[in-house]
Amino acid sequence: MTNILDNIKIVLVGTLYCGNLGQVCRAMANMGLNNLALAAPNLDDDWVMAERFAVHAQDVLSGRIVFNSLQEAIADCAFVAGTTARGGLYRQHVKSPRELAPELLELASQGKVAIVFGREDKGLTNEEIACCTHLIRIPVDPGYESINLSQAVLLCAYELFTATGNYQPPTEKSEPAVSARKLQLSSMWREMLLEIGFMKEDKAAHMMQGIQRIFSRGVYSDDDVSIMMGVARQSKWAAKNSCADALPEQ
Amino acid sequence: MTNILDNIKIVLVGTLYCGNLGQVCRAMANMGLNNLALAAPNLDDDWVMAERFAVHAQDVLSGRIVFNSLQEAIADCAFVAGTTARGGLYRQHVKSPRELAPELLELASQGKVAIVFGREDKGLTNEEIACCTHLIRIPVDPGYESINLSQAVLLCAYELFTATGNYQPPTEKSEPAVSARKLQLSSMWREMLLEIGFMKEDKAAHMMQGIQRIFSRGVYSDDDVSIMMGVARQSKWAAKNSCADALPEQ
Repeated sequence: MTNILDNIKIVLVGTLYCGNLGQVCRAMANMGLNNLALAAPNLDDDWVMAERFAVHAQDVLSGRIVFNSLQEAIADCAFVAGTTARGGLYRQHVKSPRELAPELLELASQGKVAIVFGREDKGLTNEEIACCTHLIRIPVDPGYESINLSQAVLLCAYELFTATGNYQPPTEKSEPAVSARKLQLSSMWREMLLEIGFMKEDKAAHMMQGIQRIFSRGVYSDDDVSIMMGVARQSKWAAKNSCADALPEQ
Repeated sequence: MTNILDNIKIVLVGTLYCGNLGQVCRAMANMGLNNLALAAPNLDDDWVMAERFAVHAQDVLSGRIVFNSLQEAIADCAFVAGTTARGGLYRQHVKSPRELAPELLELASQGKVAIVFGREDKGLTNEEIACCTHLIRIPVDPGYESINLSQAVLLCAYELFTATGNYQPPTEKSEPAVSARKLQLSSMWREMLLEIGFMKEDKAAHMMQGIQRIFSRGVYSDDDVSIMMGVARQSKWAAKNSCADALPEQ
């Protein structure tokens, strides 16, 4: 299966700091992006910093391709999404990365897509914005809108990565407990709570509602049921044996 | 109106690098978060770096409160969401920041909520994880799961910020064009394209379908209509006046 993200390239225009470049590489690798283009970079040449911040994303860093201009960097791209923090005449049809991500993935199945990020201090020029077929504005607090370059790349990459739907969240290893097991748990606890003197028979129904409320929120998996059954067993055993020895394994 | 985000605090446990701390402050400010707690920090004391990376988020940086342990940092929090990259017995009920954000905002209206981030190299210990009422795992590419501390904070803060629904995207300043104006535009272009010899009358209906397809995608606002009407007017004028003078203002 081809990976749709391979058809997306991150283009950094006029980047100043190698530290940012390194962090961009790491953020890209975190989100499954590998193609990095630098358009007219203006770097401080602190490559030790770049490698340090890239950490294990050295492949992305060393795979970067350098172009003299944005125009050259996007020459092979059918769609070009520029990021901008500003409004203005040609910046009115901006969308958030979350709104735009599904559309960009769809377009990436038709042709190469560039996501373009401007200079740390000045962003993209109007001329560069004019090269873009789409514009992205990252939602930020109006009180502090200036976002770090690698943070901007991360958010766009994150939205693209999550929009692929390929991410498999870790699943609960233990099966969800079935009702019969949960009823058995309740009944074991009822018995135990009576035996240890936590409640009397006439208050049992009421108290058990409280216990069941807690269990309904907290006891989810079969493992959870087993643990709480063990507690009931051990508690009954301890109440009958006033010494501090543990319950022998059964 | 109270800001729900004021009831959320970011807790960094055992942070090593002041550079990361500064970037965390900036990311928090970008997403409207202000409360920062450091639990048992283990910082390199490069405060010049911290301030440089915080940029204009000095308020968040200087407003940090330092605690001896996670337990002390979260003592006033009713809900504690820990971030983890690992699975394991007590880490099975993890949710993504996007899944959890609406729930955390709802909880923040009931009591203080902590979002906890572990050490750059080792994350949170099992003991610290046990202090958490919720667990967050950021979706990342399985090929490179280790995410920078400030990038992790940014993604969680971004999901909380966007889940508030308070962000007002920039709106189109020009009104969407109404059909009457768009029909008028079509008719002006039809006339102009005939006059300049772009098409003959017998092909006009067919050619105009192509033009209208482009306009239907590209001409959205009243400003857009005005611009394209201006093009039609100028083109007609230029076709009639074979000199290079511009159309006099009308």
